[in-house]
Amino acid sequence: MEKIPYKIYLEESEMPKSWYNLRADMKNKPAPLLNPATHQPMKPEELAGVFCEELVKQELDDTTAYFAIPEEIRNFYRMYRPSPLVRAYCLEEKLQTPAKIYYKFEGNNTSGSHKLNSAIAQAYYAKKQGLKGVTTETGAGQWGTALSMACSYFGLDCKVYMVKVSYEQKPFRREVMRTYGASVTPSPSMETAVGRKILAEHPGTTGSLGCAISEAVEVATSTEGYRYVLGSVLNQVLLHQSVIGLETKAALDKYGIKPDIIIGCAGGGSNLGGLIAPFMGEKLRGEADYRFIAVEPASCPSLTRGKYAYDFCDTGMVCPLAKMYTLGSGFIPSPNHAGGLRYHGMSSTLSQLYADGLMEATSVEQTAVFQAAEQFARVEGILPAPESSHAIRVAIDEALKCKETGEEKTIVFGLTGTGYFDMVAYEKFHDGKMVDYIPTDEELQASFAKLPKVE
Amino acid sequence: MEKIPYKIYLEESEMPKSWYNLRADMKNKPAPLLNPATHQPMKPEELAGVFCEELVKQELDDTTAYFAIPEEIRNFYRMYRPSPLVRAYCLEEKLQTPAKIYYKFEGNNTSGSHKLNSAIAQAYYAKKQGLKGVTTETGAGQWGTALSMACSYFGLDCKVYMVKVSYEQKPFRREVMRTYGASVTPSPSMETAVGRKILAEHPGTTGSLGCAISEAVEVATSTEGYRYVLGSVLNQVLLHQSVIGLETKAALDKYGIKPDIIIGCAGGGSNLGGLIAPFMGEKLRGEADYRFIAVEPASCPSLTRGKYAYDFCDTGMVCPLAKMYTLGSGFIPSPNHAGGLRYHGMSSTLSQLYADGLMEATSVEQTAVFQAAEQFARVEGILPAPESSHAIRVAIDEALKCKETGEEKTIVFGLTGTGYFDMVAYEKFHDGKMVDYIPTDEELQASFAKLPKVE
Repeated sequence: MEKIPYKIYLEESEMPKSWYNLRADMKNKPAPLLNPATHQPMKPEELAGVFCEELVKQELDDTTAYFAIPEEIRNFYRMYRPSPLVRAYCLEEKLQTPAKIYYKFEGNNTSGSHKLNSAIAQAYYAKKQGLKGVTTETGAGQWGTALSMACSYFGLDCKVYMVKVSYEQKPFRREVMRTYGASVTPSPSMETAVGRKILAEHPGTTGSLGCAISEAVEVATSTEGYRYVLGSVLNQVLLHQSVIGLETKAALDKYGIKPDIIIGCAGGGSNLGGLIAPFMGEKLRGEADYRFIAVEPASCPSLTRGKYAYDFCDTGMVCPLAKMYTLGSGFIPSPNHAGGLRYHGMSSTLSQLYADGLMEATSVEQTAVFQAAEQFARVEGILPAPESSHAIRVAIDEALKCKETGEEKTIVFGLTGTGYFDMVAYEKFHDGKMVDYIPTDEELQASFAKLPKVE
Repeated sequence: MEKIPYKIYLEESEMPKSWYNLRADMKNKPAPLLNPATHQPMKPEELAGVFCEELVKQELDDTTAYFAIPEEIRNFYRMYRPSPLVRAYCLEEKLQTPAKIYYKFEGNNTSGSHKLNSAIAQAYYAKKQGLKGVTTETGAGQWGTALSMACSYFGLDCKVYMVKVSYEQKPFRREVMRTYGASVTPSPSMETAVGRKILAEHPGTTGSLGCAISEAVEVATSTEGYRYVLGSVLNQVLLHQSVIGLETKAALDKYGIKPDIIIGCAGGGSNLGGLIAPFMGEKLRGEADYRFIAVEPASCPSLTRGKYAYDFCDTGMVCPLAKMYTLGSGFIPSPNHAGGLRYHGMSSTLSQLYADGLMEATSVEQTAVFQAAEQFARVEGILPAPESSHAIRVAIDEALKCKETGEEKTIVFGLTGTGYFDMVAYEKFHDGKMVDYIPTDEELQASFAKLPKVE
């Protein structure tokens, strides 16, 4: 058989021409978004005040299997896609495992993560609608960076509300966004009514993702020519991110490789949902079977310890209600270093798949995650983001199980991004100062008690 | 004609199997290294106490045109090579130029720069010789990062002496090196005789590259099983870096493209020497003609304002003398943000080519460099290192000349790395606090006066 190369690159001509909408093949569709006041399904016209029109269509459409990727977006994708599918020969050798490990590397663009795949799509639709700009929030900064790049490319204004503690602790992330021409405001700010209200009530607050979302939504809905965009959780985001899975599948098919296990880190679900999409489609249609593993931090375990219920997407409770595995919109995760995974809920689509037993989930502690990250970096030559390293941890664990059993399983995981802006976390790990934190059952029960009552 | 893709990737099978030694085709060979005491050419046995044996051979051989790349090194290269040659369609459109712009992108590995190409080779030869480890110095940190990765791969110890001011200002670079298992010591340190001497004389000093070199050399030559390695300037480094040029040429040849102008940033010459090697070979053999442009910072203009003379490679004056364009080993460049270009001299090979009129050189000021960097980032989606951005500046300038004249020139430049660890510099630029600095003629004359007298 032909030797598998270290990196399987597709030709530009093999890049997907359509995104795949996993919902079209789901028997049990994800539950609809509800109006927080009436508890009725959100209508397109209600959503259109917040999101771009085309994105509202994508958000609500659970029957169309494929959406053509507009040529302008494909042109941008060509700058960094197709992304490589890497055979982790060096890691396999280090582990002395018979398992075959592959990872889809999405960190080889300046935004440093897969977030760009959806950012460019959302910016494109905003531009096409004739908007002046978009607003968003960012915590760890990956999404804000990606959106800034995308807006810069299309000449759109980009207003980023960055959680104040991140704004202060991650000045470099902020500067990357400024390099791409975005305005970055520490949240809560005095620019919005909700920001002023929060600052009056909690003068010393360092902010939260929920507050930043509320500010971004307020500015989008009250400023002529602006809409709000979001980097995860939503169906539209999973749709755009399906490009990851489609490329992965095309690359594997090229060499006749059928994976046994597909692993992805999961915060809001943007990467995992995209990576598994075409494989899960096959499983739903009964054409093939795979094990899917969602990996989340033990400090923010929405799938493994959350409730499957309707909840607010933001702590300000101004956004629609989504049915999802949630820890409660008031849950404050501990200061885990995987900032991109610190979200209280999980994508409705992934939640439904998990509820239906089509996907597994596991949680890992951050010290073990950084051990895996360092081991990986030393042999594979890529410094992984803390988020991505959750998937590495479980991929290594599965490969070590194969070593015990002698099974030659094929493991594929998503390497969503690089850790260049996370060296403070690596430093803590090196200095033995990293702390693991797991919420108690009492904490979770207290948070669940505040879930909205939806009939 | 076939449309040129955004990225031209070679197949793994098309990756160069040999490095090309440009010196073999030079009529006027670069001048030999001299023993600083006797002023006689350095003998292999003298160099063998400092460098690995195979590397000494490569350093001194100016007649063998090709050196086979050992399979172990090719295996490592496969993790991140062949690197892409990118057609800068978006930049061309932004500039509205008829010029065709290509860049060879060497930043898509965790070390973040081309330095890894030579680091892995040097680590390999150290391992092959049965050494325990290597020592080196680093300023900006790119070389130290690359070497740490390479040593980690081969299980070698790696001792990095990092200029103290960088050690303190760039803690994240330090942590990347630690992630790869290197020990990083701020220089000057109390670990070496030369460090203690300097600290006694200048208690508050924040160090210099010259001092760090002296410490690294002292440790290498006084510790059983260790040798010293260097990331630029030397012939061996240019040899390894020829992989950049060979791949670039192979990719261009695949589409029948003949460049008119080839542009590279130049500090010690590692990137430029590697990028131009096979093209310059053709020029030397009379097979083709190209314009080559070396771009250096106006604050450290060795080619454009230096003297072509024998000089010390380090400020401690313990290393051999090299004939090169130099600003004097005592020259202290201003705190330019392109740390990788702050070296007082230029590779002997490039110096000879420049002296023979085979290559042009130009210098640019850093504010103009960051303007180009930002313009590039916004359309091409890569955040460039300050060093690399010197080449971008001149590539843009040449493309704008084409716009005036209507000429459809083909411009190729080397994009050596990413700027993730240079956000302090970007911040200064955004805040309008960046200062340009050009040494006065008097400063340079004073420095030239201290050049060693070599007959």
